[in-house]
This record gives sequence, C-alpha cells and structure tokens, in this order.
Amino acid sequence: MIEDKNPQRTSIAQLGEFGLITHLTKDFDIKQPSTFKSIGDDAAVLDFKDKKTVVSTDLLIEGVHFDLAYMPLKHLGYKAVVVNVSDICAMNAKPTQITVSIAVSNRFPLEALEELYVGIALAAKEYNVDVVGGDTTSSQKGLIISITAIGEADAEEITYRDGAKKTDLLVVTGDLGAAYMGLQVLEREKQVFQVNPNSQPDLDLYTYLIERQLKPEARKDVRTLLHALEIKPTSMIDISDGLSSEIIHICKQSKVGCNLYEDKLPLDPQFISTCEEFNIDSTTVAINGGEDYELLFTIDINDFDKIKGNPHFSVIGHMCEESEGIHLITRADTKIALKARGWNALQEE
Amino acid sequence: MIEDKNPQRTSIAQLGEFGLITHLTKDFDIKQPSTFKSIGDDAAVLDFKDKKTVVSTDLLIEGVHFDLAYMPLKHLGYKAVVVNVSDICAMNAKPTQITVSIAVSNRFPLEALEELYVGIALAAKEYNVDVVGGDTTSSQKGLIISITAIGEADAEEITYRDGAKKTDLLVVTGDLGAAYMGLQVLEREKQVFQVNPNSQPDLDLYTYLIERQLKPEARKDVRTLLHALEIKPTSMIDISDGLSSEIIHICKQSKVGCNLYEDKLPLDPQFISTCEEFNIDSTTVAINGGEDYELLFTIDINDFDKIKGNPHFSVIGHMCEESEGIHLITRADTKIALKARGWNALQEE
Repeated sequence: MIEDKNPQRTSIAQLGEFGLITHLTKDFDIKQPSTFKSIGDDAAVLDFKDKKTVVSTDLLIEGVHFDLAYMPLKHLGYKAVVVNVSDICAMNAKPTQITVSIAVSNRFPLEALEELYVGIALAAKEYNVDVVGGDTTSSQKGLIISITAIGEADAEEITYRDGAKKTDLLVVTGDLGAAYMGLQVLEREKQVFQVNPNSQPDLDLYTYLIERQLKPEARKDVRTLLHALEIKPTSMIDISDGLSSEIIHICKQSKVGCNLYEDKLPLDPQFISTCEEFNIDSTTVAINGGEDYELLFTIDINDFDKIKGNPHFSVIGHMCEESEGIHLITRADTKIALKARGWNALQEE
Repeated sequence: MIEDKNPQRTSIAQLGEFGLITHLTKDFDIKQPSTFKSIGDDAAVLDFKDKKTVVSTDLLIEGVHFDLAYMPLKHLGYKAVVVNVSDICAMNAKPTQITVSIAVSNRFPLEALEELYVGIALAAKEYNVDVVGGDTTSSQKGLIISITAIGEADAEEITYRDGAKKTDLLVVTGDLGAAYMGLQVLEREKQVFQVNPNSQPDLDLYTYLIERQLKPEARKDVRTLLHALEIKPTSMIDISDGLSSEIIHICKQSKVGCNLYEDKLPLDPQFISTCEEFNIDSTTVAINGGEDYELLFTIDINDFDKIKGNPHFSVIGHMCEESEGIHLITRADTKIALKARGWNALQEE
C-alpha cells in the first residue's frame, strides 16, 4: 500500500532527526490560548491559569494495534489522535494539546510519514488541539506511535470513574460494536485479497462499520451537550476496550453493581445485518467489541427527564448495590454475569 | 541477563493489561501537591495553579537507544526517567510528574518488567516526580519505553533556547564525553564476552564512565544553584545529542554565533586516560559524544563574577555576532567550524 501510493521515496536518514521533526510539523499552527511555547525547545510550555490540567498517554504498535495492510497511514494518524483525545473527553474535559512521538523502521520512506502527519494534522484541526511536542526516531521493526493528550477543565467539571451511585442510570452515547464489525469486514477482505489480488472488494454494504474502524471520532460534543442539559455525570469512561470491560471499571471503582439491559443496547442497522451475515451474535459484539470511542457515563436518576428521548444518548441500565453484582438482563429476562472480555493488547493470540 | 536474574518467569498475558499496570505501580506514592488524581482513570488530573506547565516526551527503543546485553533493566528504567526529567531541567523548570508507557514482546517475563519499574520508581523518588499515568502493551519486537515528563515554573523563570545574546558567556555543568566513552568500554566488553563468555571483565578503571552511561543523572540541582547565585540564564538546553549539536541549536534559535574554547572543556581524568587507551581524540568525543545530560546555558557577561570559580560550572566560550559563525578555537589557536555530528537515532549504521 505504501509503495502504490508513494512512488517517490525519500530516505528518512537523509533528513536526520531534527530536520524530520521540523519538516513534519512546519504547517502546524497554534490555536489554543493555553499553548505558550510549542515545538522547538526542550519542552513545551502551557498555561492553564485557574483550570486543572488533564493528561493521558497511549502507545500504538504496528501489528498489535493496527495493520497497515488495510489501515491507510492518513487514517492511522487521525485515529491515533482520536484515541487519545477520547481519554480527555472521558474526563469531561476539553482537549487542548497533544505530543506525538513516532518510531519507524527504515522500510518507511519520508512520504509515508508525511501521509501519517496529514492525518495527525487533520485530527488536530478537527479537535482543535495543538501539536506541541514529540520525538522521531528509528525502530527495529514497524511503526510505533506514542501520543500524550492534554486537556483542561474546571475542578468541578471533571468526571472520574469512581463517582457512580447505586441508584444512578447508565447511559451510552452513539451506538455499539460497529468498529469491531468493521475490523471483521476488513480482515475478511484482506484474506480474499491474499488469495486473489485482482478481486475488487464491494464494501458499500459496510461503509458505516468500516468508517467506525478506520476513522473513529472522539465524543468532544458530549461535554457541551451535557452542559446544555445541565447534567453533571457522576462517573464517566470512554469505550475503548468494550462496553462490559468499561462497566466493570466503573462498578469496581465506584463500588456499585449494575444491571445492563440487552434490549436497550443501541445498535446500528448495518451492524445488525452484518452480524447476521457473519453469523455472530450482535449482543456479544456490542458488549465485548472495543474501539467504539463512545462515552459511557452514569447520571443521577433525577436527571432522567433531561436526557429522555435525546438522540445522542441511550439509557442502557442502572447501577445497584455492589453485592448484587454486574449483570446483563437478556431479552428473555435471564441474568448473565458480565465479564471483562474486551479487547486486550496483551492477550496471546 | 534476564534469564540469569529471573529464574521465575510469569507470563505477562496471565496478568492482562489492567492487572499489569496496577501491579507495576501499586507501590508508587504521590509526592507532589500538583498531582490531583494519579493512575486509575482515563487521564491524570494536575493542578499547577498560577505556574506554567512544562511538557516533554521521549521514545526509547531497544536496539536503537539501548542494548540489554549490558544495560540492566533497573538501570534502563532509571535512565529513561532521567532523560526526560533532564528536558524539564533544561527549561529551568521543576520536574513534577511523568507518565510511563511500555511495550514489550513476549520474551519479557513479568519479573523483567518489575526490574524495569524498580528503576523507574527509584528515579521517581530521587527526582521527586509522581508517576501519574501510562500504558502497557505488547510489541512485535523488543522493549519500547515512552515517557512524558511534566514540570512547573513561573513564567519569568523559564529558559528557552532562543534567548542568547551576542555578548553572553557559554557555560556548561559537570564534565563532557564520559557517557560516550562508557558506552565504548561496554561495547568492547560485550565483544570480548561474545568471544569468551567465561572472561571476567575488570572495569575498575572505568567506573565513572560506565556510571555516566548506565546511570546518568539530570541536573535538577542547577535550577536551585543558579537561583541562589541570582543568575537567570538567557538560554538553556540539555546535552543529550552532544555539545556541538546543542551549541548549534542555541545559536540558530538565538541568531548568534559562538566561539568555543578547546582548553576550557571540562574533562574528567578517567575520561582523558580512557580516550588515550582507545586512541580517540578527547576533544572530538567531548564535543560530539552525547548522553551526558549536563546543562548548557548562556549568561549575561555581567554575571561572570557570580559564577567564576564555581566547581559546578565551566565557562567554555562566548557568543558573538551570527555572521561570525560557530567555531571551536583549538589549543593551537586555530578556528574550526563546529558541525552537528552528535548522536542521531535516525542515522543509518
């Protein structure tokens, strides 16, 4: 894929480390008033005044977190930023800056890194964050991306995982499982391609799923939406590892139990039909598939009327006493204990 | 080395991603008042009140930045923190927090990561920084460490690379080149070991050099020392890539030239004798060898009396008009143009 798209190949060693950073970030402008000094010194200098600073970091490894066989570098750059910005959104904070470190093996020409940085720049623009630092170096194998995201918020806005109360409602944004099914579709096409490189995939039936996998978005709008509704969530987390895993995080840290209702799970029609085609149970995927980057949060039961019928939010369950445990209530009204089977980068294949 | 030291091997997959972070950071305590919320949520929350926030990030890759054949994991953990803290010191700021992300291939048992984290914890204690976040994941090859360091400072304290004036003096802390020669000694021993695994290396003659390579320190003391002397440096940088490379950074960003004096370079006697033994020119190493993590800064010429004779500082040159260029003045009083030949992780071997 890299070869096809980049007939011109400039060796990265020609530019050197300093030239490379300057080259890749030269068009990045500064948008945030809190960015005092950006790239070009030993460190960036930020000024959050009376706000709190929120910091999160993630490491993305080729062959573990992404496969360049079907992940275009531009999309990868975009997604790498989104994944980190999502963590800031999950604190109910406003993303403001990122640092981006990249390690590449010598199989990557400069043009490939430029593609990656086009995606990074696009996401930085979309999420209104400044790229204020980073590091580029060589790797022994593959592409490694490390991003640190920084945000700001007033102390009273920030939402942790440990604030859910036993009578709270459990709410999720958007819909679930589509990113996982997008990956299944792409994996299938990759295998078809390996058998017959001339096959032309028809992916029209899966556009939404593939977009959710290749170009996910962080829910930066939720902070504003909730603010307008005068709702302060009692706890919040983003769905990167799968719904059930995130529910368990909130329950454990908040010391509460949870009843999750199968019939309340928000599923896209394309997701449902593709699960049927793949002969996979849609509830299993909705609960365990990761990478949706939707937000999962709890609200006080008295806030129900404010959120009822809002197309952005689905009430999917309620919290309960810790001793009652964490369960899925199926359509057949049976109770199944939820387990953290979400996506785990450390799992052995 | 890993096998010898860790007869017990626990597979990392057994613990899983969440268990691993919790396990590795469970003994880390919080020391900084600015750490509002540490590990355990989507992001850390920091509060710098009226101070500025300083952020720097670095990526360390096995086989590129370190060789586990002679770098014990504990030392590597320590050094990884030091390298990042040094960037904060180079802004004349106080390091306060770090995030640590690790990717490992399955050849590393849990006990190896524990060793690494012992070093990280030791450095965090020594430099009084809180480990407030991170990520652990698997890699396709080797060990990858990504650290983001955060610090605080008043706006007027922060020292950039671009503030040097043409009459300023150039000052360096400590001594130069020892870390590079430590690496040469270790590389030689590695080769000896490969030929004869039973050889017992006698490294007594090189203890200082090896310590500078395996357990470097960041100059967090310099901020306090300069404050006590009532000196505000006009520019500052840390020496990670080599003196000449760092001088060029300051000169380019400050739009000045520089005369560096060979006879003023601070060299340790062990460094000089080892250069002689290896038949390497000590000035070349002092100027181009990296990883010393000393601080290089410029001061107003009127501050000379405050710094004169201070054992922590050596005046090694002076800035000049940009048009005069950047030169080394040799002992023989010849002028040689300085080039950035410092250590470059992107260089092809």
